[in-house]
Amino acid sequence: MTTETRTGATGQARALIQRPRLEEMGLSTGKLVRLKRIYLRGKGNGTLLFLPIDQGLEHGPRDFFDNPESIDPEYQWKLAVEGNYSGIALQYGLASKYIRDYAGRVPLVLKLNGKTDIPSDKQPLSPLHTSVEEAVRLGADAVGYTLYVGSPLQAEDFVQFGEVRREAEIYGMPVIVWAYPRGEAVEAKGGRESPYAIEYAARVACELGADIVKVNMPEDPGEKAAGSPKPYNTLKYDAVEAMERVVRAAGRTPVLLSGGERVPDEELFAKAETALQAGATGFIFGRNIWQRPPQQATEVIHKLWDLLGRY
Amino acid sequence: MTTETRTGATGQARALIQRPRLEEMGLSTGKLVRLKRIYLRGKGNGTLLFLPIDQGLEHGPRDFFDNPESIDPEYQWKLAVEGNYSGIALQYGLASKYIRDYAGRVPLVLKLNGKTDIPSDKQPLSPLHTSVEEAVRLGADAVGYTLYVGSPLQAEDFVQFGEVRREAEIYGMPVIVWAYPRGEAVEAKGGRESPYAIEYAARVACELGADIVKVNMPEDPGEKAAGSPKPYNTLKYDAVEAMERVVRAAGRTPVLLSGGERVPDEELFAKAETALQAGATGFIFGRNIWQRPPQQATEVIHKLWDLLGRY
Amino acid sequence: MTTETRTGATGQARALIQRPRLEEMGLSTGKLVRLKRIYLRGKGNGTLLFLPIDQGLEHGPRDFFDNPESIDPEYQWKLAVEGNYSGIALQYGLASKYIRDYAGRVPLVLKLNGKTDIPSDKQPLSPLHTSVEEAVRLGADAVGYTLYVGSPLQAEDFVQFGEVRREAEIYGMPVIVWAYPRGEAVEAKGGRESPYAIEYAARVACELGADIVKVNMPEDPGEKAAGSPKPYNTLKYDAVEAMERVVRAAGRTPVLLSGGERVPDEELFAKAETALQAGATGFIFGRNIWQRPPQQATEVIHKLWDLLGRY
Amino acid sequence: MTTETRTGATGQARALIQRPRLEEMGLSTGKLVRLKRIYLRGKGNGTLLFLPIDQGLEHGPRDFFDNPESIDPEYQWKLAVEGNYSGIALQYGLASKYIRDYAGRVPLVLKLNGKTDIPSDKQPLSPLHTSVEEAVRLGADAVGYTLYVGSPLQAEDFVQFGEVRREAEIYGMPVIVWAYPRGEAVEAKGGRESPYAIEYAARVACELGADIVKVNMPEDPGEKAAGSPKPYNTLKYDAVEAMERVVRAAGRTPVLLSGGERVPDEELFAKAETALQAGATGFIFGRNIWQRPPQQATEVIHKLWDLLGRY
Amino acid sequence: MTTETRTGATGQARALIQRPRLEEMGLSTGKLVRLKRIYLRGKGNGTLLFLPIDQGLEHGPRDFFDNPESIDPEYQWKLAVEGNYSGIALQYGLASKYIRDYAGRVPLVLKLNGKTDIPSDKQPLSPLHTSVEEAVRLGADAVGYTLYVGSPLQAEDFVQFGEVRREAEIYGMPVIVWAYPRGEAVEAKGGRESPYAIEYAARVACELGADIVKVNMPEDPGEKAAGSPKPYNTLKYDAVEAMERVVRAAGRTPVLLSGGERVPDEELFAKAETALQAGATGFIFGRNIWQRPPQQATEVIHKLWDLLGRY
Repeated sequence: MTTETRTGATGQARALIQRPRLEEMGLSTGKLVRLKRIYLRGKGNGTLLFLPIDQGLEHGPRDFFDNPESIDPEYQWKLAVEGNYSGIALQYGLASKYIRDYAGRVPLVLKLNGKTDIPSDKQPLSPLHTSVEEAVRLGADAVGYTLYVGSPLQAEDFVQFGEVRREAEIYGMPVIVWAYPRGEAVEAKGGRESPYAIEYAARVACELGADIVKVNMPEDPGEKAAGSPKPYNTLKYDAVEAMERVVRAAGRTPVLLSGGERVPDEELFAKAETALQAGATGFIFGRNIWQRPPQQATEVIHKLWDLLGRY
Repeated sequence: MTTETRTGATGQARALIQRPRLEEMGLSTGKLVRLKRIYLRGKGNGTLLFLPIDQGLEHGPRDFFDNPESIDPEYQWKLAVEGNYSGIALQYGLASKYIRDYAGRVPLVLKLNGKTDIPSDKQPLSPLHTSVEEAVRLGADAVGYTLYVGSPLQAEDFVQFGEVRREAEIYGMPVIVWAYPRGEAVEAKGGRESPYAIEYAARVACELGADIVKVNMPEDPGEKAAGSPKPYNTLKYDAVEAMERVVRAAGRTPVLLSGGERVPDEELFAKAETALQAGATGFIFGRNIWQRPPQQATEVIHKLWDLLGRY
Repeated sequence: MTTETRTGATGQARALIQRPRLEEMGLSTGKLVRLKRIYLRGKGNGTLLFLPIDQGLEHGPRDFFDNPESIDPEYQWKLAVEGNYSGIALQYGLASKYIRDYAGRVPLVLKLNGKTDIPSDKQPLSPLHTSVEEAVRLGADAVGYTLYVGSPLQAEDFVQFGEVRREAEIYGMPVIVWAYPRGEAVEAKGGRESPYAIEYAARVACELGADIVKVNMPEDPGEKAAGSPKPYNTLKYDAVEAMERVVRAAGRTPVLLSGGERVPDEELFAKAETALQAGATGFIFGRNIWQRPPQQATEVIHKLWDLLGRY
Repeated sequence: MTTETRTGATGQARALIQRPRLEEMGLSTGKLVRLKRIYLRGKGNGTLLFLPIDQGLEHGPRDFFDNPESIDPEYQWKLAVEGNYSGIALQYGLASKYIRDYAGRVPLVLKLNGKTDIPSDKQPLSPLHTSVEEAVRLGADAVGYTLYVGSPLQAEDFVQFGEVRREAEIYGMPVIVWAYPRGEAVEAKGGRESPYAIEYAARVACELGADIVKVNMPEDPGEKAAGSPKPYNTLKYDAVEAMERVVRAAGRTPVLLSGGERVPDEELFAKAETALQAGATGFIFGRNIWQRPPQQATEVIHKLWDLLGRY
Repeated sequence: MTTETRTGATGQARALIQRPRLEEMGLSTGKLVRLKRIYLRGKGNGTLLFLPIDQGLEHGPRDFFDNPESIDPEYQWKLAVEGNYSGIALQYGLASKYIRDYAGRVPLVLKLNGKTDIPSDKQPLSPLHTSVEEAVRLGADAVGYTLYVGSPLQAEDFVQFGEVRREAEIYGMPVIVWAYPRGEAVEAKGGRESPYAIEYAARVACELGADIVKVNMPEDPGEKAAGSPKPYNTLKYDAVEAMERVVRAAGRTPVLLSGGERVPDEELFAKAETALQAGATGFIFGRNIWQRPPQQATEVIHKLWDLLGRY
């Protein structure tokens, strides 16, 4: 990671550390070509904003009640186009059935694995049901992969991810990793939102070869911190420092902040600003966007792009 | 999903939402060709009626006692031909040994997986014993796959289904998913017939890339609703609304209603009408048809086509 | 299954239902060619008689004490040749080491899977240790596969069988399925010899695409019948009817009767006659043949062929 | 197995049954060529003597303390060359690092699977870490495979062995099976050295297609015999008869006697003579040879060859 | 292993046994070419010094707190270049994102497998997430593989390692094995640092075909020795003898000493000298190097090379 000012940045670069530039990420030609199609959307200043719509699989249709329009995938496709998103992230079925209508207007991030939240989550592993080759066939510009760091099935996950990453190398397809700490050992060591767990997850994604990594914002684990390994069990730092450690742990892997459940707007924008100050590259917010009617959603999208434009 | 009136519909389109048209399903050429062979049977108005005969595998010969003729697969083949069915759905052995006699007179939906109900059903997974390639060799116009949404073995199921779906993309073979909620977690969250479970199953089939999805009619889970996630735990809607939610969850994936066990005719036709009102595309009724002598069966088939013709 | 009189039958066709003719089994050319080599041995009237010698693997050398000569596989090879058998069924090692001496004089049925009875049988699965391709290389005219219907490992078994069956389609190699109900669920539902279990096993073999199926004779489960699903829990029929139900469940798949342990001759011939009356196509008797000295064995073989010749 | 006198035997053929001749083993050309390179070492009378050095893997370096020189694999390579052995049997690393120095002077039997004795042996399976193809690349004349007959993982073992055997057929590579009864079921049925277990293991190797089988000498199980199936639970025979039953159970598969732990010389030679009287083809003795200083080892080797020369 | 004096050694060869020379390791041309690129770094006297930076994956970012600079992989890459290292060992992500900047200045040892220490370590297995082919693509001169000798999953590990080793043979890529005793059986038999366990692990790596093996220094297990097999349960020897036994157990496989956790410098150099006296070929020290600021680190590196230069 260099600390020189990025050329072409339109806003003031106030981040503690500079986000990685495409040129220093060791990308093959195909990956660079595809990432440029993604990076040149939005502000074009090296920041990213993605719209995920895989919650219908991950949580089921219950997520669509707050905004009934949202059950129709066209709602998210249209928002992604109109919001000038860096990309829309979804599963194969939502890609193949709708992309003909929206192709050329928003890059596709094909999510390769996924699961429902119905069965027990004690041994989480997100199974693959499509492939990088299919992403190529659909004209995708990146693929997404959920990695459950710390899961009892972590070994299988590493193997599965390795196969995806190798296939992605062959096709020149960028890989975005949803790096989620999970499993009872994670909970015992401070919890899935602890600095220990999220830094570790970001590092794992980096070491295993993710091109971009998506993480949650670390939270103070409170008393659960006692279970974290040294020095995390006694560490105190503020939100920006916590996120900055995550960004550093990811090395030359750009970091995206997850949105998670719908939160009040104030909280959402505070998190977003914190992440950018800490060196994050962008956001991937789903429910916080499409669980609103179209006009409200568009307003939030504009604000997020404004924020991103300042970094 | 568009809401414009379908061209060529012969009846009054009274459904709450329009069923997906072939043109908007993102189909490859091969899939479209094969589905047209299926869609142009029967009323040719975009509705579908399938005859399944895989119960000899799924339940064993006990299902044939009510109508002893039905143990001979020729009984179902003949009904499917005479009833001008959209297709007959069965396993490899019943296809390969009989199709030479009936080819050209009814489309074949080759069921790719299946199991007996003898061993414990705690970890349901329906194993593959044939392939899309074999379906091509037999001249099938679609394949069928049973997906147990929510099963403890859901991860294996997703992987297995993904392989089938990819092979089907290669050959241009439509995939019909039997989307069945199953497993102890499903039972704890309202049961396999609850709106929560069936909407979720329909959505999973859609997100994973089913071309057509087959579901049961949702039922009021009664007290079991308390185990369903919000807002399902307090939700109340009538039968048509319940089914409509399922159809909406499936997006651009046409929905077929399952028949299940033999029920009184009145009940059968009421369910069928409800499904069509809610936007379902058709029916796949087995025991309710072939557990009757030939003449009775034919009468019911004619009534079902009449009903389908009105939508 | 047609009910017209088979042409070329040399005996009086007294069976309740006609056994399937080769012409109606949906066979590929290669399968038909090989089955004709098998069917034209013996009486040439469409009946079959096989000699199995896989008990050295399935039970160990203990089965050879009653007739010490029988430990030498040449004993069974010679009986099969001299008895003008439809085929000899054995494992790869007994085929590859001896067939050069007996080739052209008796068709080879290569058993593809097998196991010892040493470890626990709670989760039975018969593993593959050879392939259809090897059967082709050895000049076999059919392959044999043991399927444990109802086993807790049934799903793996179906997948494994499916692979064998597909390979057999490619090479035009007939597949004979040893369809054995097994596992605690089977025992709880009436037992492995109950009509419920054996009819179901025969149907499974048919639906999964067996060319020929080998079953045991159903027995009255007595009090265990109470555990069988309706209507088997209260059903009463005589031996011929019980076997006839099995034959019907198998559809266009010819049924072979297993011999099992050595029994008194009277009992053996009674079972054999029952099976033929019920529409079975032939027998596969091992210990009842080769656990005797050569001359006794030959006498029994002649009687069996006489019996087969009458159907 | 023929009983005629073998031509070319230089000693008096006093064995109860004749060992199989290469010509009657159903060998492909490649297997015959390689086995002739092995058989023509030593006495050239159809007997075999192998030196195994896989104990460093199977038991660890503890086996080398009695003769500290033996920790250096060159010790065994030199003994094998100087003793004019039929072959040296070892793992890939000991082959690839040393064979350049000893090539052409002793045939290589590449052991394909192996394990340490550190973890629990309750579910024994010897994993493959090399292949027949690698054996070909190293110029081996045979491969070795350990099969744990009766293990709870027997099904996996059969599958794994089947793959090795098929690859060996393709390359014309002889397969020597270390046939070892193992697992709690074996212990309950008389133990791993019981006649029941060893006869069964020899038969399994034969039926699964081993070219040569290596077994331990059966021992009287004493009270444990009660657990063996009939008639083994009451059977009594002397050492030669016991071994003869094993040889008969192996059919046309030549039998090698294992040495096992170091025993007094008297005992070693008695076992060796018993085996030859019973029809065994030779020996595979490791610790009994190389746990001695070179001169003592050479003396024993000469005595063994003398003994083999008399059969 | 020869005992003649190595030609070209610049220091006094005081080791008890000579380390293996490249010429006697049975190397293919490709392996020799690559190892020469590695061996000719540093002193060029046949000794080796590697810098590992896989702790971010194996332990997480907690290892970087002592020297905050060390979280940035550039820190280790620069040390490796400036220290004239024989190679830098790291995971795919840290290789692919940084090697363009450092290529040609230090050989790459691509670590092929790895895991986090978050989930339970009761059944350790280090999963593969990249391949030898990818190592070739990145221009690596060797690959690294962690083998958990004694693990309950040892069988899977052997299979996985065998596949890596075979792929490495095909590409002429040297394989360095991290040979670590692990699992409850290891702990019961004296512990992971006991002479029994480490000798055994070194031998396993040799027999399975490692080109170079990395081990920890054996430690006196104290009372735990009672659990080791004979004669380890009563054995006493000093540190050099203990390490010498490990070197002998590894045969023609050069031995690298691991560093492990940061220890006082005195202790580090004592261990290093002991290892060389016992015949080790070099060191692979990570945390003991990069958990220091750059100047301190450089000083230690120089001292290590000086030490290596004397052997």
